[in-house]
Amino acid sequence: MAAMTHMIDSEVFLAFSTYATIVMLKMMLMAPMTTYFRLTRKVFANLEDTKLVSSTEDKKFIRVDPEVERVRRCHLNDLENIVPFVVVGLLYALTGPDLSSALLHFRVFAASRICHTIAYVGALPQPSRGLSCIVGGVVTVSMAYRVLSVTLHL
Amino acid sequence: MAAMTHMIDSEVFLAFSTYATIVMLKMMLMAPMTTYFRLTRKVFANLEDTKLVSSTEDKKFIRVDPEVERVRRCHLNDLENIVPFVVVGLLYALTGPDLSSALLHFRVFAASRICHTIAYVGALPQPSRGLSCIVGGVVTVSMAYRVLSVTLHL
Amino acid sequence: MAAMTHMIDSEVFLAFSTYATIVMLKMMLMAPMTTYFRLTRKVFANLEDTKLVSSTEDKKFIRVDPEVERVRRCHLNDLENIVPFVVVGLLYALTGPDLSSALLHFRVFAASRICHTIAYVGALPQPSRGLSCIVGGVVTVSMAYRVLSVTLHL
Repeated sequence: MAAMTHMIDSEVFLAFSTYATIVMLKMMLMAPMTTYFRLTRKVFANLEDTKLVSSTEDKKFIRVDPEVERVRRCHLNDLENIVPFVVVGLLYALTGPDLSSALLHFRVFAASRICHTIAYVGALPQPSRGLSCIVGGVVTVSMAYRVLSVTLHL
Repeated sequence: MAAMTHMIDSEVFLAFSTYATIVMLKMMLMAPMTTYFRLTRKVFANLEDTKLVSSTEDKKFIRVDPEVERVRRCHLNDLENIVPFVVVGLLYALTGPDLSSALLHFRVFAASRICHTIAYVGALPQPSRGLSCIVGGVVTVSMAYRVLSVTLHL
Repeated sequence: MAAMTHMIDSEVFLAFSTYATIVMLKMMLMAPMTTYFRLTRKVFANLEDTKLVSSTEDKKFIRVDPEVERVRRCHLNDLENIVPFVVVGLLYALTGPDLSSALLHFRVFAASRICHTIAYVGALPQPSRGLSCIVGGVVTVSMAYRVLSVTLHL
């Protein structure tokens, strides 16, 4: 582990920075997508928001819409899965893995989350969504295994 | 990027540490705020919690309250926006930006999230809440742009 | 703070890596637990998922189940508490605390989250869940105090 500091200037860390930023941007995209569905379907959670589509505040726009809830669940699933990837991935990048092995982990994860979003928002038949979620989870667990085997200090 | 390691000891990283800790503490404040509303309004999500305001477990306190849900949505919005800021901001701080430019990003983001919370919990008229949320998002995207332009390694 | 870079190769950082990975894996465990409850209780949020337990898509499985919601709330509470721990803990580990003091923080936090999950999923009487949540929060605030007192740069 004497080399952990040097890893920050390695290609593995550059690759991690790139993919971590990409999946964060993908996750952030869910917010404007939710807003888009809320505005086009006129479905809001807060009374003050109804003024965006009506001249007066109107309780009839305070509804629960299946399409909006679907995007919100997708956003929450992103949080639940992308946050562990970023945290474990940062520590993994510092343990000095092979560049090819690290890139494999990062690429598979990023692809799995993009597939997950398409499957979720597009309501594709299962097990498309379930499998893409599991693939991403396996990548994170694989990186966690390496972090623990290198750094274990209880 | 040979200087990434040195960035950890830079003033930019100190500033990032300060602002990341501040926005995390702000986010954590939402939990006691939710508890406060739950206790004062006697609205709970779990049957075992109703004993806190009643001598026996009582199903009538298992309700959904608009004020409590408002604070919970604000907390979730914090998670959705502050987590990307912290992750992208950490990588951004390592790319060696100017101190003045970095401070501008961090200060605007922290201010935008404080305004967002006030606008959300206080139910201020739109677009106060929407604008503060967008400003914070623009800061994160601006930092992500720099991270990707410096580190891109797909 | 000239020593921040060296902290990455310290035992404190190894300990942080270990505990951060452990609490992330604990948080990730909530996803299969939710899936288990959804499948055994036949409760789904998406129409396309009902095919997993039925030959045709069936709206009667689109329900809200108290047990599933309990696990989901526990997962969200993990996100709300473990994310600040990991972010503040990373910065705290870089400020060069004593190993014994750092280990105390990390161990108490990890134990508090495991107790919290047992208390939440098992619906144990309060204040077991509330106390374990507060203990974890105090650990994070204590680390945040050290980070701010060492790095403050507004």
